[in-house]
Amino acid sequence: MDVATLVGLFGALGVIITSIFIGGSVGTFINVPSLVVVVGGTAMVTLTQVTLAQFIGSFKVGLGAFFYKTTKPEELIEEAVELADTARKEGILALESREIADPFLNTGIGMCIDGHPTEVVQKMLSKDINLTLERQNTGIKTFKAAGDAAPAMGMIGTLIGLVQMLSNMEDPKSIGPAMAVALLTTLYGAVIANAVALPIAEKLRGISASERLNKLLVLESIAAIQDGTNPRVLQQLLTTYLPENRREALVKNGK
Amino acid sequence: MDVATLVGLFGALGVIITSIFIGGSVGTFINVPSLVVVVGGTAMVTLTQVTLAQFIGSFKVGLGAFFYKTTKPEELIEEAVELADTARKEGILALESREIADPFLNTGIGMCIDGHPTEVVQKMLSKDINLTLERQNTGIKTFKAAGDAAPAMGMIGTLIGLVQMLSNMEDPKSIGPAMAVALLTTLYGAVIANAVALPIAEKLRGISASERLNKLLVLESIAAIQDGTNPRVLQQLLTTYLPENRREALVKNGK
Amino acid sequence: MDVATLVGLFGALGVIITSIFIGGSVGTFINVPSLVVVVGGTAMVTLTQVTLAQFIGSFKVGLGAFFYKTTKPEELIEEAVELADTARKEGILALESREIADPFLNTGIGMCIDGHPTEVVQKMLSKDINLTLERQNTGIKTFKAAGDAAPAMGMIGTLIGLVQMLSNMEDPKSIGPAMAVALLTTLYGAVIANAVALPIAEKLRGISASERLNKLLVLESIAAIQDGTNPRVLQQLLTTYLPENRREALVKNGK
Amino acid sequence: MDVATLVGLFGALGVIITSIFIGGSVGTFINVPSLVVVVGGTAMVTLTQVTLAQFIGSFKVGLGAFFYKTTKPEELIEEAVELADTARKEGILALESREIADPFLNTGIGMCIDGHPTEVVQKMLSKDINLTLERQNTGIKTFKAAGDAAPAMGMIGTLIGLVQMLSNMEDPKSIGPAMAVALLTTLYGAVIANAVALPIAEKLRGISASERLNKLLVLESIAAIQDGTNPRVLQQLLTTYLPENRREALVKNGK
Amino acid sequence: MDVATLVGLFGALGVIITSIFIGGSVGTFINVPSLVVVVGGTAMVTLTQVTLAQFIGSFKVGLGAFFYKTTKPEELIEEAVELADTARKEGILALESREIADPFLNTGIGMCIDGHPTEVVQKMLSKDINLTLERQNTGIKTFKAAGDAAPAMGMIGTLIGLVQMLSNMEDPKSIGPAMAVALLTTLYGAVIANAVALPIAEKLRGISASERLNKLLVLESIAAIQDGTNPRVLQQLLTTYLPENRREALVKNGK
Repeated sequence: MDVATLVGLFGALGVIITSIFIGGSVGTFINVPSLVVVVGGTAMVTLTQVTLAQFIGSFKVGLGAFFYKTTKPEELIEEAVELADTARKEGILALESREIADPFLNTGIGMCIDGHPTEVVQKMLSKDINLTLERQNTGIKTFKAAGDAAPAMGMIGTLIGLVQMLSNMEDPKSIGPAMAVALLTTLYGAVIANAVALPIAEKLRGISASERLNKLLVLESIAAIQDGTNPRVLQQLLTTYLPENRREALVKNGK
Repeated sequence: MDVATLVGLFGALGVIITSIFIGGSVGTFINVPSLVVVVGGTAMVTLTQVTLAQFIGSFKVGLGAFFYKTTKPEELIEEAVELADTARKEGILALESREIADPFLNTGIGMCIDGHPTEVVQKMLSKDINLTLERQNTGIKTFKAAGDAAPAMGMIGTLIGLVQMLSNMEDPKSIGPAMAVALLTTLYGAVIANAVALPIAEKLRGISASERLNKLLVLESIAAIQDGTNPRVLQQLLTTYLPENRREALVKNGK
Repeated sequence: MDVATLVGLFGALGVIITSIFIGGSVGTFINVPSLVVVVGGTAMVTLTQVTLAQFIGSFKVGLGAFFYKTTKPEELIEEAVELADTARKEGILALESREIADPFLNTGIGMCIDGHPTEVVQKMLSKDINLTLERQNTGIKTFKAAGDAAPAMGMIGTLIGLVQMLSNMEDPKSIGPAMAVALLTTLYGAVIANAVALPIAEKLRGISASERLNKLLVLESIAAIQDGTNPRVLQQLLTTYLPENRREALVKNGK
Repeated sequence: MDVATLVGLFGALGVIITSIFIGGSVGTFINVPSLVVVVGGTAMVTLTQVTLAQFIGSFKVGLGAFFYKTTKPEELIEEAVELADTARKEGILALESREIADPFLNTGIGMCIDGHPTEVVQKMLSKDINLTLERQNTGIKTFKAAGDAAPAMGMIGTLIGLVQMLSNMEDPKSIGPAMAVALLTTLYGAVIANAVALPIAEKLRGISASERLNKLLVLESIAAIQDGTNPRVLQQLLTTYLPENRREALVKNGK
Repeated sequence: MDVATLVGLFGALGVIITSIFIGGSVGTFINVPSLVVVVGGTAMVTLTQVTLAQFIGSFKVGLGAFFYKTTKPEELIEEAVELADTARKEGILALESREIADPFLNTGIGMCIDGHPTEVVQKMLSKDINLTLERQNTGIKTFKAAGDAAPAMGMIGTLIGLVQMLSNMEDPKSIGPAMAVALLTTLYGAVIANAVALPIAEKLRGISASERLNKLLVLESIAAIQDGTNPRVLQQLLTTYLPENRREALVKNGK
């Protein structure tokens, strides 16, 4: 579990709420109709753009941003090098009884054992990567859409409030509070977009990118295992997937 | 029919209208000249950018966003596997009497039966996909253009109202209501763009993308059928088009 | 001639002017110095970005947006199929005496008659398409530049007006009208950009795209004619350039 | 020398200054500290993003936008066709004594005379084009960075002025002039960005694009000369680099 | 060390602080809660989008923008030409005892000495370049995210301040100072984004681009060394990596 996203999200909301508490008069900041316009409106506008399944699924995808567990490339490299070692010594069929932690590596090795030629395995796995990326894109786009809709709904709410205030200015004392309420929807929209929806969309994009890199690493490993590449050469090849300061550690542990 | 877009569109407008009703004074929000400036201006600006045929056609395309029926990839896969099975057992000409639900699959199979070689079929179907995408793009661009024009026309309307108000401020009591009216066009523009035109454009883009994916699935199926691929291998190949949680179901039903 | 652009442009300006007339006090909206700042400034800023020839040429290109006559792909297809028919029956040299309506098709057929091999013809015509696109891009960019400059010059004019008004507020009665004048430049800039320059730029982009499609159709036709393709196969190939609802008509007429 | 950029730049500034003079009170618009914040701040923010050499170099590059002399493609075509003629009649070594006006053409012909094979010459010249483009990009990016920084520094200056004014409002008469001064930085930033930095950046991009086109023309000419292509065919090939209305003239003069 | 970034960053902040001092009342500009909202909020929103390791690492990456030492391409060219010379005269194994200053060149030469064939060396080094670029991208994106979050948090802070002020306007004298405080967060956000975060992001992008160019130069050198290219030809080839005005110097020194 990646704690950064959780800390960041609640930290940002915490900072905003604290700053409201410091100014006193917390009640001013809670206005149910304003909240309904912005949250409801944002949800509806987002729903227009996707299918019902995608809309509901995006909540699950959003949770994934918090509880996603990245496989470290080091673990993948170690596992791939071991498999290459076994395959080289005992043949590729010896991998059948092996338990493989990474599901994508597992699928790929399964294909090799089934006897598909290298190009077929590579083509099918590549397509799997591309189509997975396209599917993950849907989740990212849903949060991005919500992040675009929220400030727009906030502005619409503020415009409604301003029009109501301006067309009824008999009591000068009510102008200030009426404008305060009108501004609330803009505030809600800005918070939802900038502290919640857009950062989660960006986080999902980051997860999608690092998953893609892991899958490319697996793709390369499987090609090497099928070609009977020397495990040491494979390890050297795969370390390029690591930043320079983490390469050393692997070489020390790996030998 | 995809209910999400319909619910989303009317839900968003409903939320906005409700929020106006809660504030009372609904009449303030209806101003025919303002409506004419924004709606008429947006329509005219959009018309400038397209041809008359595209402009009229975009209404039909827009309706498509609500009443579009996506073919589930599962159904396409099932149909393709069955066709591959028949073609393998009885030859490709046996498909002539088959009724094929998907029109693109039907066209492709028709070409195979006419005896065109694989590369020709693939080339013609690929070009069909690309040109269809380009045509769908026109509809998307029309709604995008309307979504860009509406806030601009809203701002122009508000500027006109402000100039009129500012150059004639003899009666201080009229300033408030005059400004309220001036802001109305901005409100109209924001609603048209953010709750109607841009979400529909985005929805059309989503439909276009999922249609493209289905057509790529068909393209791949036809290549496999013409090559006499084993139906089981084809099924395995096509399941990559499904998200992981829907692959299992297909395998269970399909066998 | 495509009437949509003409109607759209004058319609948009008409809607704006009508809305000014409805509010009365039309004279308030005409301010020659403001007009000079925005129109002159926009022209100058645009001129900075291009060469003199491109600047002057862009007026001609802009007119083209109104008076451009698109060749219908149906006509091109018909002409290409006829040529293919003649070429197949009487040899490619029989095309020498034919009058060909489309100039690009004419150039291409001319090259075939001159005896250039297929790859050379294709390469030269492809390059012609790409370079034409690049040149059309210049016109689009000039109008886009004007559309970006106009609101900026409008804002600059308004800032100048505001600074003058704020530094000289002795007569409170003059504040309103002074601010009205200051806002005029923003209004002018918004109208020039959103109702004129940007829609024309977008229209030119659309024309460029449909011209490119027509030229690709010609490119494909010429390759087929040189290869001696069956005219019927060529017609089937070229119908993919049409949207589905226009394919039927062609097939009926064409045979 | 391309007069458009010079006229455009001074014209835009002239229009703005004239509009200030018309309003009288020119002194109000000159405020040295405001000027220092915007100009100094913009320079510093731009400096942060580049190296010292690039920063200083960008002034020279900026001057290039005014005094750049484009080689007309017609001249290049004529020169290339003459060279091709000589090379065909007397062999490529006969070009050694020729003086070649265009330096890039000169370098390329030099390589041919040195006896490098066609692919090597093409590869080296292509790389030269790409790397030149990448270097020109740096100049463009510096002006773009200044154009992005100027409005931001303008806004920062205005915010500083507003905070100072708002926290010290004892004398109501000083509010107007104080706000006028505060707005000056926004005005300065808008002028620097929209009338100077961004148009120059765009102009440099245009120069870079037309230079690239000329170099591609040379690249193609050299390949043709090395292959011993017929000069007439080469001329026909190179005319595609010209817009249609300039092709005729060349054909008339060239023959 | 590249002094421009350091001077630019402190210069920009200096200009802003000076402009505050000139206006007097420096104390008005320091407000701890406002600072906490903007700085804390920006940090939290950025943290949401990355992993903890990336967040902490970005500080180190940010420092790199100031203390990064670019290897001059001239030095790389000289070293590569010397290596090519030795390799040609004494064989590639003679390079084993050479000390090579550039680590990437060193890695590449090491692979050559290990006897890997040219394509393998090129493929591994290319992948190293691509993956390094992808990793550097993470640092750039973190600063970009902070630069996007800061103005948003500034706006949220100002909205909170405005709502508090508007809902409590009993003492008219407090309105000015309260609004001044409210605007402070917008000011902080604008300074953090435009004078710190975004310029550093842009600087990192520039460093990444020039490092990539250097690595491509090394890639090409190693291919030439392995192929036994003439050192003079290699030098001529590599000078295309230099701007024209620096090529002469190299030729003079290099010979």
